[in-house]
This record gives sequence, structure tokens and C-alpha cells, in this order.
Amino acid sequence: MNNRAVLLLSGGLDSTTLLAIAKQQGYDCYTLSFDYGQRHSSELTASLRIANAANVVEHKTVKIDLGAIGGSALTDHNIEVPHQHLDIAQQDMLVQDIPITYVPARNMLFLSYALGWAEVLEARNIFIGVNAVDYSGYPDCRPEFIESFEVTANLATKAGVEGYPFRVHTPLIELSKGEIIGRGVELGVDYAETVSCYQADEQGRACGKCDSCQLRRTGFIAAGVDDPTLYL
Amino acid sequence: MNNRAVLLLSGGLDSTTLLAIAKQQGYDCYTLSFDYGQRHSSELTASLRIANAANVVEHKTVKIDLGAIGGSALTDHNIEVPHQHLDIAQQDMLVQDIPITYVPARNMLFLSYALGWAEVLEARNIFIGVNAVDYSGYPDCRPEFIESFEVTANLATKAGVEGYPFRVHTPLIELSKGEIIGRGVELGVDYAETVSCYQADEQGRACGKCDSCQLRRTGFIAAGVDDPTLYL
Repeated sequence: MNNRAVLLLSGGLDSTTLLAIAKQQGYDCYTLSFDYGQRHSSELTASLRIANAANVVEHKTVKIDLGAIGGSALTDHNIEVPHQHLDIAQQDMLVQDIPITYVPARNMLFLSYALGWAEVLEARNIFIGVNAVDYSGYPDCRPEFIESFEVTANLATKAGVEGYPFRVHTPLIELSKGEIIGRGVELGVDYAETVSCYQADEQGRACGKCDSCQLRRTGFIAAGVDDPTLYL
Repeated sequence: MNNRAVLLLSGGLDSTTLLAIAKQQGYDCYTLSFDYGQRHSSELTASLRIANAANVVEHKTVKIDLGAIGGSALTDHNIEVPHQHLDIAQQDMLVQDIPITYVPARNMLFLSYALGWAEVLEARNIFIGVNAVDYSGYPDCRPEFIESFEVTANLATKAGVEGYPFRVHTPLIELSKGEIIGRGVELGVDYAETVSCYQADEQGRACGKCDSCQLRRTGFIAAGVDDPTLYL
């Protein structure tokens, strides 16, 4: 078998760290980003820049039509992105409201595209940067979802049927934001290049107020690392 | 709970019969078609016509970028669609080559979109027209894939977490093509409106030679029903 991996790259802090980890583990990385009607395209340009800087074998941006389905503040421009939905002190609680920024079936879709490309490439490894902070709110970031997806993926495909099963790697799943940043800094990740904000402007400058910005900012404090984010 | 169902409608014989069955079972149907770089768009216009004729609540066509992933004769215009891959006499064999018209992870993707839309609609029922003939060749048409998808879908979503699980309905899965046609004729399906051919022309006229055409033609013979297909 080859050493290829398809890696979901959003251009954010988590998936950029994920890429550094996959590379360090010796995988030949094929990165996949989605143009799904995000409010701004700065995360897509960040993805491309990060993929190039990491010398990936190939980077693809696939346009998908999540807006047609609707139902999330991230793709439906009629729903306002809320500020401070997450109470940072409550991150460890198991039961929490599901945020309005939740996109229906998003990781299922993203992983399905990754699976399709992996099958074409004859890659058997898929990397996704879900983590502990995410799964406090989003059902499709929980380990039990990922494990179940892996089972389904192997039933869905020629690869699984032919006996070379897929593996979905989630090296960030148990890490806090601070630990992710600590790991990335060790591996030389330049976080100034990454965009996490739900409503960053065209230059990738962050609002500093949305859930994603707050988690990120708190992560840098926890890691004891200077926050290189450009804020508006 | 409501009585809504999201139904994958390709405009072919199977999914059109599926729609008639779901309606007869009393579901309020929301139909979903995909523009995924098919060689011809006649199946998309057929879907729209069939959805309108069936008075569905809403019909959506979502554009998806399967061509970017490649790997199938159905989306990659550099791969020729083969004729007579399937030996009709061998349909009952369990182990068979996987045809070149297999699209990597296609049903996984289609079902994931259906799941996303279902979640937005607060529908808990998804219909897909996979059947016994299909699963002789395509791994993602087998009952064990569908069952596993259902488990994963309920882990992926708010709906599953909140205790109102999704159900994926596959009423055609055990039926032969002839039985599907027999059921559809009972329910008043007009098969002249459906397009099954992998390479139908813009008017929906079928080649008569590809796997799909042959299965369809044999189905009409088995059902003892005149074949209303327009051939080139």
C-alpha cells in the first residue's frame, strides 16, 4: 500500500496543525478545501497558501452547494452569526446547546468527498481536524461519529470490499486548543497564516468576537504563545 | 413528528417508482436531484418533470463537483462508458467485478446531502432507490451499507442526538427490475417519462446498449410490460 493521505484543510488553526502532524508522520498529503458559500473567501486563499507552503502533493478546492440546503448561520446569510455563544468556562460540560453555526451534515459531506478522492487516489488514510472543543457543541465532531463513519466508508467503497480498509485519523480529537497550538509551534506552524474567524474580511482579518475567535484567543493564552492573529 | 421525507430522485426508472411508493405510503415528499457533471442533462429535466407531475412539496437540484474527484466513466469524459459489462444471466452471483461506471462514494455523498436537507426540514425519513440488481456491482447499494449509513447519520446530527432518529427507506432493495416495474405500473407510473441510459441524448433518448439500458429492457420483458423507452 502507498503512503497517501487525503486531508481536510480549512485554512484554520486546527487543520493547519493537522497537516503539520500528518507530514511529520510521513504521509504524502493531498489537501481538500471546500467552497461552500462561506461569507468570505479568505479561508480558501489561506488554505491554498498553507498547502503550497507545506509542499503537499496536490491541493483541490471543491465547490459545494450547502447554501441550497440552508439552516446555518455560516451559509445562510439571513441568520446572524452570534457572538459569545460558547461560555468558555463551560467547555468541559458534556451536554451543551448545539450552536447556530452548526452546518447540517457538514462533516459527513466533507468526509464523503475526502473518501471519494481517496478512493480515486488509492489512498487509505483520511485526516480530519475535529477536536475536543468542537465536539462539545457539534455532533459530527464526536469520536463515536468518526468511528461510525469509518465503518460506513469501508462498506461504501471498493476499497473496503477489496480488503484494504480506510482509516480516518483524528490526532487532535483529545487535545485542547492550547495543546493544539503547543504541538503546532513545535512543528513550526506559522499561525499568522491561518484564518479561524467565522466572519473574517477579505484580507483574513478576524472579528475577535465570534465563538471561533474567542476559542482561538484563549488557546494562545493557554499555550503561552503570542497571538499572531490580525484583528480588525 | 411530521410526515416529511427527502427522496433521492434521478429521473430514472427506480427512483420514479420509489417516489410513487413513498407517496402511496403517505409521505410528504421533498425530492433531491444532483447535477454532478453527467454527460447529458436529460435526466435532470426528467427529474423536474417527474417531481412536478407527482406534486412533490419541493424539488431541489444541487450542483456537485464529482468531476473534480474523477475516477468514473460517468463523470470523467476521458473514460469510455462500456457496453454490456454486466452479464444479465449472472445477476444473482454475489461476487462480481465492480463496474467502471461506479462513482467513488457517490451514494455516501448523495445520502449526506439528503441528510443535511432532512435535518433542515425536520424530516426524519430518507428514501433511496437502491436495489438488488445494483448491489451486485456497486458496494454502496448493499443493505449493510445502508444500515451503517443510518447509524452514522444519527451520530452525525442534532436529530439523532436529540432522540428522533433518521430512517433510510429502501423499498426497492429486494426487488428485481421486473418487480420494480410491476409495482410502478400498479401505482400508475408513466415510464415513458423516465431516463435510465448512461448516455441518453438531450431529448432523453436512450442508447439501448449500456448496462443500464439492458437492465431496463430486460426488466420490461420480465414484467410483461411494453417498453415505452424512446431509443436512438
